[in-house]
Amino acid sequence: MNVQGAQRRTLVEGADGASVEVIDQRRLPHELVTATLRTCEEAAVAIREMWVRGAPLIGVTGAYGLALALKADGSDGALERAFHQLAGTRPTAVNLRWALEEVMGEVRPLPRADRAAAAWKKAGLLAEADVSQCRAIGAHGASLIQAVHARAGRPVNVLTHCNAGWLATIDWGTALAPIYVAHRAGVPLHVWVDETRPRNQGSALTAWELQQEGVPFTVIADNAGGHLLQRGQVDLCIVGSDRTTRIGDVCNKIGTYLKALAARANDVPFYVALPSSSIDWSVRDGVKEIPIEERDPAEVTHVSGWSSGRWATVRLTPEGAQAANPAFDVTPAAYVSKLVTERGVCDANEVGLLRLFPERA
Amino acid sequence: MNVQGAQRRTLVEGADGASVEVIDQRRLPHELVTATLRTCEEAAVAIREMWVRGAPLIGVTGAYGLALALKADGSDGALERAFHQLAGTRPTAVNLRWALEEVMGEVRPLPRADRAAAAWKKAGLLAEADVSQCRAIGAHGASLIQAVHARAGRPVNVLTHCNAGWLATIDWGTALAPIYVAHRAGVPLHVWVDETRPRNQGSALTAWELQQEGVPFTVIADNAGGHLLQRGQVDLCIVGSDRTTRIGDVCNKIGTYLKALAARANDVPFYVALPSSSIDWSVRDGVKEIPIEERDPAEVTHVSGWSSGRWATVRLTPEGAQAANPAFDVTPAAYVSKLVTERGVCDANEVGLLRLFPERA
Repeated sequence: MNVQGAQRRTLVEGADGASVEVIDQRRLPHELVTATLRTCEEAAVAIREMWVRGAPLIGVTGAYGLALALKADGSDGALERAFHQLAGTRPTAVNLRWALEEVMGEVRPLPRADRAAAAWKKAGLLAEADVSQCRAIGAHGASLIQAVHARAGRPVNVLTHCNAGWLATIDWGTALAPIYVAHRAGVPLHVWVDETRPRNQGSALTAWELQQEGVPFTVIADNAGGHLLQRGQVDLCIVGSDRTTRIGDVCNKIGTYLKALAARANDVPFYVALPSSSIDWSVRDGVKEIPIEERDPAEVTHVSGWSSGRWATVRLTPEGAQAANPAFDVTPAAYVSKLVTERGVCDANEVGLLRLFPERA
Repeated sequence: MNVQGAQRRTLVEGADGASVEVIDQRRLPHELVTATLRTCEEAAVAIREMWVRGAPLIGVTGAYGLALALKADGSDGALERAFHQLAGTRPTAVNLRWALEEVMGEVRPLPRADRAAAAWKKAGLLAEADVSQCRAIGAHGASLIQAVHARAGRPVNVLTHCNAGWLATIDWGTALAPIYVAHRAGVPLHVWVDETRPRNQGSALTAWELQQEGVPFTVIADNAGGHLLQRGQVDLCIVGSDRTTRIGDVCNKIGTYLKALAARANDVPFYVALPSSSIDWSVRDGVKEIPIEERDPAEVTHVSGWSSGRWATVRLTPEGAQAANPAFDVTPAAYVSKLVTERGVCDANEVGLLRLFPERA
């Protein structure tokens, strides 16, 4: 998408064919800094230390990490070591392991000398597949936004939570893809951006993305969404999903569930945009079956931001105060109006999902 | 309540009989700083610049401000000037104007020489009345907490939003009064404290109050409450109210409504504690009739906290990002389990309120 007026992706192959350039997302929105990854170790650091985040982007970065490892040493041992090094960076990231296995399956049968080139090519295909998938999600979701505009004849107000934008993928994003597609098609719209405490991905990343792309937006405290929904200031909600179950329960960034409840109470559609790779077909009841990761309480007690031209961290709570930091919550399918996937829009239940993905029946 | 092991109130009469001492609450939880108010002007500054906040405390501070004005000049002109100066500090604070009028009614008929002493005495009576009212709210609400403990036989988990503690009143508080009364009575409990963006009154003030009083608590992001309610980790919610309508709609800090929705969806009681002085008997439908104050967007784009032994402010959003900051929301009575007032506990509807306050029929 647009950054300072030019198109870019979150990950770009180096002209030397032996490196990839990524954005160090920890420094957004206050600094735009790129990093060149030349080794498997550098790719592992970039994933582990969250220079890159978002399941699709992590997966592709891992795939290129394997290719970089094979450039240095094409042996079986090197391949196994690189796989474990990369897979261990974010142990719960299903998509990372999947992408690494895709590359492994491609290169394992090949002679050592051919492996690096094959892995590089495969990583590129994974990246292109992600872009196509996100663009398809965008096209399907944009029609939902367009429909509101056609009916209401005024700018469409969309509420989103966290960052499921192009920064989390290679390009376009998931929840933000429909917004970008609709905006580029000339549909007038405005986005309410939840700041998304405790890590503020909304006020940092989503706001930055929308600003760079020229989409009108307003940042709000996470607390404000219920009020806006109640007062008719939101036409529809679109969020992403970290993991969607077979029956349509959605595990996503903490706070998603509260917005889904408020959307339902006020008869506002609540859409979830997701690539089918994030559907966990083995899980049904998300509330009962999905364990919720507890992150560092310091994310709640402290906040980092920009102060006099540099990063600073401030403490919000009294010294010694205890905090808890569940990172995700589960929105039961009953509160999800529709799922927006790369194959189309469906009801948030098993029948709806299997209509789009009959091979999973 | 307890501060550093000693009992104190938010406002204390000076031994000289010509000043009051308040806590400069802007500096909590990182610094405990008191300020001595010796003139009406100083009282006005303390209210306007939010050294003191919370409707009951603002009202009593205003009342003492009038008394301080009359000590300097007991004339009608001085009385009128002081009234308007103080009433203008927070134009929407119903309770402030009410307290000022209480003092005015008392002193206007008196000779100039007697007015200062009478105003001082009346301010003291208003302070004592507030303490009694909050203690009564605490006793009524504590029985609800005690009932959960009696049934469950384990520590009771209470969720609260914003700060409706003793810092917002003279002592005890409103929403926190039941917690303090139950805790002092030996009922084991634990409080989930919503940080309450954008001004963080939860992580700053409520956490500090509970810590000083020795009540176990955990600070959470505002986003986390839905998840905790869904997973059975909250037995009941108690919040305060800035304004309650005749039919029981509750206007309170932004985000209250989202927690009420989540409590209802998970069959957890949602209680609102309030002094009857905050009931607006002239309003019925809170959603339609109560205008919501928009505060400075900088509260959303920036956060202040403690960094290396001093206050610092950091920006969270990209430069130039727009933000909106509605300060309150309305929770329809249908989502309120019970109202807890100084006269007892009642259903959140007109019948329930009039049973406790028949004089309003």
